[in-house]
Amino acid sequence: KKRSREDSDKPPDKRVRINVGGTLFETWRSTLERIPGTRLALMAVLGESDDTWDKEKKEFFFDRHPGVFSMVMQYYRTEELHTDQNFCGNIIQGELDFWGLTELDIEPCCWGQYSKFKDHRETLAALDENFTQQTEMEAWTEKTTNYERFKHRVWQFIEEPSTSRAAKLYAVFSMFFVVLSIAIFCLETYHWFRVPIPGAKSHNATGYDTYFAPTGDQCIKTKHKTGQYEFSATEPHPAMTYLDYVCAAYFTIEYLTRFFFAPGKWKFIKGPLNVIDLLCLIPHLIAIIMVTVDPYGSSKDTSNLFRAFLALRTVRILRIFKLMKHYSAFKILVYTIKVSTKELLLLVIFLFTGVLIFASIIFYTENDTFDSIPVGFWWALVTMTTVGYGDKVPRTEGGYIIGCVCVLCGVLTVAFTVPIVVNNFTLYYSHAQSRIKLPVHKRKELKR
Amino acid sequence: KKRSREDSDKPPDKRVRINVGGTLFETWRSTLERIPGTRLALMAVLGESDDTWDKEKKEFFFDRHPGVFSMVMQYYRTEELHTDQNFCGNIIQGELDFWGLTELDIEPCCWGQYSKFKDHRETLAALDENFTQQTEMEAWTEKTTNYERFKHRVWQFIEEPSTSRAAKLYAVFSMFFVVLSIAIFCLETYHWFRVPIPGAKSHNATGYDTYFAPTGDQCIKTKHKTGQYEFSATEPHPAMTYLDYVCAAYFTIEYLTRFFFAPGKWKFIKGPLNVIDLLCLIPHLIAIIMVTVDPYGSSKDTSNLFRAFLALRTVRILRIFKLMKHYSAFKILVYTIKVSTKELLLLVIFLFTGVLIFASIIFYTENDTFDSIPVGFWWALVTMTTVGYGDKVPRTEGGYIIGCVCVLCGVLTVAFTVPIVVNNFTLYYSHAQSRIKLPVHKRKELKR
Amino acid sequence: KKRSREDSDKPPDKRVRINVGGTLFETWRSTLERIPGTRLALMAVLGESDDTWDKEKKEFFFDRHPGVFSMVMQYYRTEELHTDQNFCGNIIQGELDFWGLTELDIEPCCWGQYSKFKDHRETLAALDENFTQQTEMEAWTEKTTNYERFKHRVWQFIEEPSTSRAAKLYAVFSMFFVVLSIAIFCLETYHWFRVPIPGAKSHNATGYDTYFAPTGDQCIKTKHKTGQYEFSATEPHPAMTYLDYVCAAYFTIEYLTRFFFAPGKWKFIKGPLNVIDLLCLIPHLIAIIMVTVDPYGSSKDTSNLFRAFLALRTVRILRIFKLMKHYSAFKILVYTIKVSTKELLLLVIFLFTGVLIFASIIFYTENDTFDSIPVGFWWALVTMTTVGYGDKVPRTEGGYIIGCVCVLCGVLTVAFTVPIVVNNFTLYYSHAQSRIKLPVHKRKELKR
Amino acid sequence: KKRSREDSDKPPDKRVRINVGGTLFETWRSTLERIPGTRLALMAVLGESDDTWDKEKKEFFFDRHPGVFSMVMQYYRTEELHTDQNFCGNIIQGELDFWGLTELDIEPCCWGQYSKFKDHRETLAALDENFTQQTEMEAWTEKTTNYERFKHRVWQFIEEPSTSRAAKLYAVFSMFFVVLSIAIFCLETYHWFRVPIPGAKSHNATGYDTYFAPTGDQCIKTKHKTGQYEFSATEPHPAMTYLDYVCAAYFTIEYLTRFFFAPGKWKFIKGPLNVIDLLCLIPHLIAIIMVTVDPYGSSKDTSNLFRAFLALRTVRILRIFKLMKHYSAFKILVYTIKVSTKELLLLVIFLFTGVLIFASIIFYTENDTFDSIPVGFWWALVTMTTVGYGDKVPRTEGGYIIGCVCVLCGVLTVAFTVPIVVNNFTLYYSHAQSRIKLPVHKRKELKR
Ligand SMILES: [K+]
Ligand SMILES: [K+]
Repeated sequence: KKRSREDSDKPPDKRVRINVGGTLFETWRSTLERIPGTRLALMAVLGESDDTWDKEKKEFFFDRHPGVFSMVMQYYRTEELHTDQNFCGNIIQGELDFWGLTELDIEPCCWGQYSKFKDHRETLAALDENFTQQTEMEAWTEKTTNYERFKHRVWQFIEEPSTSRAAKLYAVFSMFFVVLSIAIFCLETYHWFRVPIPGAKSHNATGYDTYFAPTGDQCIKTKHKTGQYEFSATEPHPAMTYLDYVCAAYFTIEYLTRFFFAPGKWKFIKGPLNVIDLLCLIPHLIAIIMVTVDPYGSSKDTSNLFRAFLALRTVRILRIFKLMKHYSAFKILVYTIKVSTKELLLLVIFLFTGVLIFASIIFYTENDTFDSIPVGFWWALVTMTTVGYGDKVPRTEGGYIIGCVCVLCGVLTVAFTVPIVVNNFTLYYSHAQSRIKLPVHKRKELKR
Repeated sequence: KKRSREDSDKPPDKRVRINVGGTLFETWRSTLERIPGTRLALMAVLGESDDTWDKEKKEFFFDRHPGVFSMVMQYYRTEELHTDQNFCGNIIQGELDFWGLTELDIEPCCWGQYSKFKDHRETLAALDENFTQQTEMEAWTEKTTNYERFKHRVWQFIEEPSTSRAAKLYAVFSMFFVVLSIAIFCLETYHWFRVPIPGAKSHNATGYDTYFAPTGDQCIKTKHKTGQYEFSATEPHPAMTYLDYVCAAYFTIEYLTRFFFAPGKWKFIKGPLNVIDLLCLIPHLIAIIMVTVDPYGSSKDTSNLFRAFLALRTVRILRIFKLMKHYSAFKILVYTIKVSTKELLLLVIFLFTGVLIFASIIFYTENDTFDSIPVGFWWALVTMTTVGYGDKVPRTEGGYIIGCVCVLCGVLTVAFTVPIVVNNFTLYYSHAQSRIKLPVHKRKELKR
Repeated sequence: KKRSREDSDKPPDKRVRINVGGTLFETWRSTLERIPGTRLALMAVLGESDDTWDKEKKEFFFDRHPGVFSMVMQYYRTEELHTDQNFCGNIIQGELDFWGLTELDIEPCCWGQYSKFKDHRETLAALDENFTQQTEMEAWTEKTTNYERFKHRVWQFIEEPSTSRAAKLYAVFSMFFVVLSIAIFCLETYHWFRVPIPGAKSHNATGYDTYFAPTGDQCIKTKHKTGQYEFSATEPHPAMTYLDYVCAAYFTIEYLTRFFFAPGKWKFIKGPLNVIDLLCLIPHLIAIIMVTVDPYGSSKDTSNLFRAFLALRTVRILRIFKLMKHYSAFKILVYTIKVSTKELLLLVIFLFTGVLIFASIIFYTENDTFDSIPVGFWWALVTMTTVGYGDKVPRTEGGYIIGCVCVLCGVLTVAFTVPIVVNNFTLYYSHAQSRIKLPVHKRKELKR
Repeated sequence: KKRSREDSDKPPDKRVRINVGGTLFETWRSTLERIPGTRLALMAVLGESDDTWDKEKKEFFFDRHPGVFSMVMQYYRTEELHTDQNFCGNIIQGELDFWGLTELDIEPCCWGQYSKFKDHRETLAALDENFTQQTEMEAWTEKTTNYERFKHRVWQFIEEPSTSRAAKLYAVFSMFFVVLSIAIFCLETYHWFRVPIPGAKSHNATGYDTYFAPTGDQCIKTKHKTGQYEFSATEPHPAMTYLDYVCAAYFTIEYLTRFFFAPGKWKFIKGPLNVIDLLCLIPHLIAIIMVTVDPYGSSKDTSNLFRAFLALRTVRILRIFKLMKHYSAFKILVYTIKVSTKELLLLVIFLFTGVLIFASIIFYTENDTFDSIPVGFWWALVTMTTVGYGDKVPRTEGGYIIGCVCVLCGVLTVAFTVPIVVNNFTLYYSHAQSRIKLPVHKRKELKR
């Protein structure tokens, strides 16, 4: 072992007094010479001719952290550098630099706590940075034209609900339109809000219906329904369509207004939420153009275009991110995902490897149920994440065994990788929460 | 970097001795002047004319915490304020205030530990408060009329089982009725406890039955059952109904007695458990009125009213909360939910966003299986929470891919948000547990 | 606020030097008088007449822990008792007792860390106790008869595989029979190991078979199978039955031998594993009696008895606990469950409350699918634990909404309650693991 | 209780001054004599004749860690050894050895933190070792023949992408073939990439199709498909087969090249990734032989051999591990699994016990649904891991109750055992992550 305590068999040599920030440390001179090339070894060699020698008190004086020095002293005694768990790694780093040591000397058992602090410092500083970006905009306020001051005030009214009561009201009003628009988007597909297209042919469907007798038996009743329309033979109720156009009109006006009052035009256009805004409006603009060109939807071509346009409308769901604009937890989530890409990749790669292996094995074991490996992918992922839909289930002895192994691997894979990603989020969230609790007028000082 | 250690290139200046609560600290005067406007900077400027100067020992004396001062000294040396992990944030705050620093000076890496203590103090103090509210009632005991003393004693007998053995027995007796009432409520819907309504027509159902041959094949047998009754053609066994009315009678008497003996009538009526009590009795009262008015249930109107009344009976399940009355873990849960509204909202909002997005995408991808976006909501939530019923499952290539992404997002969303809410509960629960272990006669001192 | 720092506006009074275990503390006399009735307040009043006064050095001397005293001093300064996180709560308690303070003075923010140590001490000491119980038996060894020494040696051979190589071999041999017996128990129900009962009638079953076309379509083929036997028309292969009787014979002999050599007969019979042993043998003994009485199984009564006897055989599965005999993790699990009854109850009660509420609501909302509340129980539990079989699934708008709420409540309930139970197990397991790593000859010292 | 504080009732004896590394400790001589046979007890007895006695300062001097000594002193005072939480267990061990104490004296409440550090040290040092094994190879570089230097350079080019830009490009190129090969393996089973075998008979299948009416009803349409081929009547598209042979050719060449340039031939062949490489090639080699021997696949024997060969091809999926070659997280996972075998076994044993018990009970309770105990295994595992496919579900009252208990046990079993395995992985991962962040040129120093 490295631990060499020869002080017992060697004749005791000169005692050295070191005063570190007021705290006295005493050791043998030989101890200090054990790790050559460091400040203390040099000091031991120079002795009274060292800069730090205090003639009066017969001691060396350093204006450094006494707690960390205690740690350093123990390194000289045992030749193993263990850190105190209650000191922040960033303090330790600074002191080690001063004493001529490096963080590489720290033993693996103490490395975790040490590097945890260093990692936190970087990421949390970056998080603070990320949250105070908005306030950069405020530097812009010192412009002096009356007109510009007006523009700036309107911009604040639109963008920062916290500035005035009216701005808050406007934000609620704006959010109402977002919610309305999303609600229309979702509900117009539901049969309560659909009417048959004029001229569509209804048909008689044969459905089945199950009911329970009080004995608990599940009984089947065959059900003949008449006057049913297939989904493609129906359209949203006109009221829904009109409301949707009202929303579109509002968002168009809002976008243009905000564009007009935006301080940086190009920055405004590039903003992710504004890109979404524009994308969500495109389907409506196209629809208007199409209706203008071919008002009666007669030609086959337009009809196909209409279908493509239907698919395009999906983008409107992105409007939900507009609701997130003023929600800080969402920003933290986005930031976590940005920072934790590596860990997320870990989850995906581990799961994907498992999925690939189990999909192949199950395909060759249960060719009857799993008709191809890609179908096995679906089964393996659904099994490993313990969703277990049960649409594809092994039915042979071999399949059961593979299924069991797959389930166990899945449980472990998820359990292994999820905490790594999640820890970051919890850290960022609690940091941001405690930051929000700080008094507003002082929070800006944190940027320093 | 901010870290400026100019002490090596500047000529060494006067050493300053500071005695903080008996522990000596020594530093250069120039170090203390680095952060102007603080107590130590002022002290360095004033020198021997400072109040704290001790002529005899030639040192400054402060009756403060030496451990925290060590931390403060390091701030002067490195211009970075890192906190020791073993000191409670509340001690640190007090000391920082004294030395003229603010918590905003603390570096982000150490902020977490610091603010954790501060947060805990507030919430745990509030939790203690919450748990000792009941004892406020006891202040009321000093009333002196004989009659009032009797009323108080009965009230204690009814409400506080811990006061006497008889009160405990009564509590068990009262709980028996609650359990009985809930059991009746649940079991009267089960076919074992139902009889056909006189005159109801039975019918022949065609059910199916599966059985397994020893080869493991699942075989279907068609089963014709005769003499089946639909649920609506049966009613609970009369014995159940009678027992239910006995319970109702007991609860009515109990409610009135408790109302009579309650010290504050209006407070009693507003109490959530008493509101539940009253709500649970309403269906019975209505039933009695209905039977009085139209004893033979002949008219169609009454029959419809009866159905509405059936739905109303659901409220009786709330009686389960009466069982929770004396269960402290339940109170902690309620308190956690109250305090963690923000975090619960986080979970709901994140899940809802995911559900909305995946529902829309799956609807446009797999129009065949998912007939509307609201149906997609159901599928997306069931998938994201890994329940995976399998009643709606994607069946096309596109659907499989979206399903996989949805599952992964769900696993992460739940993993991200659940720990944030749960941490609070674990903290409160273990705090309350260790509080309960304290000797009873001393626990009240904790309120101070 | 309580924090009263009047030291700045009051005239500075006499400084008091306190030497605690070699470390000097200095404070104002007035500070010590702030908390009356404590040892330090008394000391401040008595001054130089106190026992601990050291005339030479002009200080009070206490042979106590300096670190904890620093904490106590801060209590006198700020009137708030915060504990250092790096001291074990048990040290703190002892010191507080000495200084005349109580643990109730500790602030809620620091209470958690303090009581954690105290809780751990009790439970971990109990765990150590629990694990060293076996060695009590060894105290019995000092008996001196030759015959008793032989009996003891055989007993050791049977019970403690670690004592000799032969004992280890015997343990493996014994375990082989346990595994064999369990394997027979499980496999004799599988169709590979079953033969038709002589004279049983086979029948033609109509099964169905699904296969996948390469296009991914799932197609159904009707399948007619001949020569199928129902489960009740088959019996285990005779070889299985014979092997089972061999096992039974072995276990009978083993039980009798162990009973003969057991040091305490009554303690042996009460031992849970021996009770299981006996229980598992009963079905076989009955079978032998039955075959002796009615060798041809002719009468109807014996046949019914046989069926009851079949059900009784289930107890044989308990033999699996015999495998656990030498597995320490299992003992820890059992211990955890014993200690965490309260927390397990919490999980069950919270889940049960949720189940009850959601079962009732879903029954009244979706009467078609859920034919009674008890069926709703099943659905609610399966949903809340995210198992989600999909055998009962809501199919109406109302049911979907209730299902969503149920899923969320379930996820939270499980997440809330599981960590509380699990923490204990993790603690005990890691404690026991590090205990096992200790050198064997020294481990017994731990009992002290 | 052990805590004996007789210092109050005994007459105060001689005070002893001990200087440990510059920090003064004072105590009564009687305190030191409390634990006989230790260094301090001996010192107290020897007094001024002890080696460590310093005549000038009238104190004993030890060049040891003052913080740990404070802990040791408290052991003499209270006869209970509690450790400070902020010191690494490895420091404590060294100091305890010096003072003549053993780690067995540490109280159970502090044992956890102490042994955590010791465990981490061993495993993390082993992890570091494991990661730096590759660099051993570099020691080989000092060979001086020109030819050998060339061979080495080629080997580096092939094996270490970080050495040059060309090597990185080559690694990407090599990975492309791996991905291609895996993609072919998976996709050639999908119906998009399959063609009917010349001469195979198509057949008409009767499938079913469900669609949703806008009312939300699920309707069934019977579908007659013509021209369907069963899976066994199709073969992968020729393009796929050709691409596959290209990949095989590339891997053969790569394997031979790498074998030629490998520094240690036998070590190369034994390398797990190279074994996989060879295994994956075997099916292709056999196919080539078979085609050479019987080019028209006419005989029945070859056809059967072909089927066996198909099953053999599954091994090709192992190629995915080649992708993992340069992915450190994967190595950590493998290492974790190696180290945590005991904990993984725990998970498997606990789950298996539960599965065995619940499978037996459900079989005897619900003989109709669960036709044998092995089928019960499948159900029990799928239920305990909350996968819940729903292919086998209890349908009777007894089965429901057992199912509920099974679900709860499963949730707890998984929750109990998973964190124990996972903790290791999280620790290793974060350690390895912070290790990777170190500057490359210095990382090798860590090996010392
Ligand atoms: K499921
Ligand atoms: K599931």
